[in-house]
Amino acid sequence: MGKLYFRHGAMNSGKSTALLQVAYNYEERGQSVAIVKPAVDTKGNLSVVSRLGMARDVDFVILPTENLRTKFAEHSQSTGSKIDCLLVDEAQFLTAEQVDQAMEIAVIDGVPVLAYGIRTDFLTNGFPGSIRLLEIAHTLEELKTICRCGKKAMFNARLKNGAFVFDGDQVAIDGAEVTYESLCPSCYYAKIGKTT
Amino acid sequence: MGKLYFRHGAMNSGKSTALLQVAYNYEERGQSVAIVKPAVDTKGNLSVVSRLGMARDVDFVILPTENLRTKFAEHSQSTGSKIDCLLVDEAQFLTAEQVDQAMEIAVIDGVPVLAYGIRTDFLTNGFPGSIRLLEIAHTLEELKTICRCGKKAMFNARLKNGAFVFDGDQVAIDGAEVTYESLCPSCYYAKIGKTT
Amino acid sequence: MGKLYFRHGAMNSGKSTALLQVAYNYEERGQSVAIVKPAVDTKGNLSVVSRLGMARDVDFVILPTENLRTKFAEHSQSTGSKIDCLLVDEAQFLTAEQVDQAMEIAVIDGVPVLAYGIRTDFLTNGFPGSIRLLEIAHTLEELKTICRCGKKAMFNARLKNGAFVFDGDQVAIDGAEVTYESLCPSCYYAKIGKTT
Amino acid sequence: MGKLYFRHGAMNSGKSTALLQVAYNYEERGQSVAIVKPAVDTKGNLSVVSRLGMARDVDFVILPTENLRTKFAEHSQSTGSKIDCLLVDEAQFLTAEQVDQAMEIAVIDGVPVLAYGIRTDFLTNGFPGSIRLLEIAHTLEELKTICRCGKKAMFNARLKNGAFVFDGDQVAIDGAEVTYESLCPSCYYAKIGKTT
Repeated sequence: MGKLYFRHGAMNSGKSTALLQVAYNYEERGQSVAIVKPAVDTKGNLSVVSRLGMARDVDFVILPTENLRTKFAEHSQSTGSKIDCLLVDEAQFLTAEQVDQAMEIAVIDGVPVLAYGIRTDFLTNGFPGSIRLLEIAHTLEELKTICRCGKKAMFNARLKNGAFVFDGDQVAIDGAEVTYESLCPSCYYAKIGKTT
Repeated sequence: MGKLYFRHGAMNSGKSTALLQVAYNYEERGQSVAIVKPAVDTKGNLSVVSRLGMARDVDFVILPTENLRTKFAEHSQSTGSKIDCLLVDEAQFLTAEQVDQAMEIAVIDGVPVLAYGIRTDFLTNGFPGSIRLLEIAHTLEELKTICRCGKKAMFNARLKNGAFVFDGDQVAIDGAEVTYESLCPSCYYAKIGKTT
Repeated sequence: MGKLYFRHGAMNSGKSTALLQVAYNYEERGQSVAIVKPAVDTKGNLSVVSRLGMARDVDFVILPTENLRTKFAEHSQSTGSKIDCLLVDEAQFLTAEQVDQAMEIAVIDGVPVLAYGIRTDFLTNGFPGSIRLLEIAHTLEELKTICRCGKKAMFNARLKNGAFVFDGDQVAIDGAEVTYESLCPSCYYAKIGKTT
Repeated sequence: MGKLYFRHGAMNSGKSTALLQVAYNYEERGQSVAIVKPAVDTKGNLSVVSRLGMARDVDFVILPTENLRTKFAEHSQSTGSKIDCLLVDEAQFLTAEQVDQAMEIAVIDGVPVLAYGIRTDFLTNGFPGSIRLLEIAHTLEELKTICRCGKKAMFNARLKNGAFVFDGDQVAIDGAEVTYESLCPSCYYAKIGKTT
């Protein structure tokens, strides 16, 4: 039996680097991985991109309407060999159903699934995929990073043209206009004016 | 600054025992705790009850319509001294707002909050309180227990008069008619007929 | 395959309570456990004693010269049925060889071994058993408790007739004359005069 | 107050990558780090080298006879500004005294110290530095990797010209002749002929 892991961390905590390292480790031991990314994320142009400078193409993308278990089985068959591990980048963008399918890949098909993603959006609300992962994953592991103040960052504040904003759509991929800064709860509270 | 901890575990994993131990430890070191329980839970008659045989009255209960931070401040004032730690039993029954208030108790008021609860109901869906805790708690720690098969139990299956049931209200406190058994995902899948 | 777990924590962090809870959980699911204690520990008179008020006799004791794997096999045979889990109280008092034997019970015999103990003595040096457990256990998990100052306690300071002492034998079971207080590193440093 | 972290993992689990990511994260938030490496390790020629292809020079090296706290203070002064975090690569090669000095840097000087290293040598015995880190670090975190069989690797088997060897010096830096393969306990036991 495999397990479903949710390795969560604030933005810019090194999740993509960690995913690429795991892929490297598996392959170095003669095992194979598949990397999948929800199609909603257009950052990196269907690659997993680490801020440290590494990148690697995903093996397949998944649309919100598709079945992850079916798609993974099709990919496995296309490679002609058993895949030893499924890695999910930006897993918060999976649907809740796709997380249940990931659980079935682990528990019924016996393939470990390592899902990397953030817990919450810029308003501290969970994404459908991350909520479901937090509910059912076998193991919840945190990738830590620091806030500008030195404490552990947990929340993902959004900036628009450099200014913190607290309204807008849940999903806004970072780019030229929109950026994110991961903050500790104290610093996040200070930005929204909650100090007492 | 304090932190908000969510110590989650399947039913019958020993959460109440762990809570009572923490209370004991604090008091042994000359520090004080307050224990709160959401009013929805009627098990134990406003006590924290451990299956190992210990019990202790809660310090106050919280209704879904009440503000946890206000209620805690009132309780602190009534004792005439600073409370060093807030312990929450059956934390899955908090509202999402009350979890945010628990976060403020930790981050703004500087009092650590240790919340004990289950992640999901008998259909593997999160409770409002547990979802919010999973989204924002500083630390997620699992109290493990085993399934009848020996693997780690994660899901809380409901039995009615001894038979597994998969429909009904989200909340049904265990008692004479309704009981729960914590199962691993494989055994839970077997019970709902999902085997391939 | 089973695993060897080392669940470590400062003195008075609730290790015995946690051990008794695990035993209860296994038995509640119709599984069996054996509890062993190194003979060097005379506290509790061959019982596992929780400060919360519970106690339970150990199933067998182990002398420094005995082989844990052999002794466990003999105990299993004497019960006439397979034991599902071996629980070790005061595991720091195992010899290094006995920890290796615990590892073989887990890896070769397939029985999970949960060892509870402290990491270090009153001078912050490891015990032979705890060092070996830290070196090879599959999983290291901490049971946390607090220092008198509110921070996490880690070191086990010894008191003799109420006064902190920093010389003496590594093993001195707590009783009428000798007691222990678990301290955070800052408070421990203060007691030994290391402040800059 | 800072903390001393020991992030341990079998060889080739990605420790250097993780260290480089943490350095990147700190600097991205406008904070500074210092990277130190014990001089015994000659791999990478005074760089931290990740198998993923990244490398970075260390800020200073430490000889077994030197005082880590003094050396770090000198380095901090030479940069003219406070260092926010000390990162230690190949931390198993620190002496026990240097680990105590790392603890003082964290607890007394208030600078978090993140030490990356392996727990045990090719015979499963701890190194002086890793034993002391396991004894006193505030937090023990594992970086996981897999064995050739798919289970978690924990032990670091040595190969000489491609053949497993089980005698030799504790320290033999991997290179042309000597290599290492991280194995799970089962596979390691199989290599040394321990199967029952």
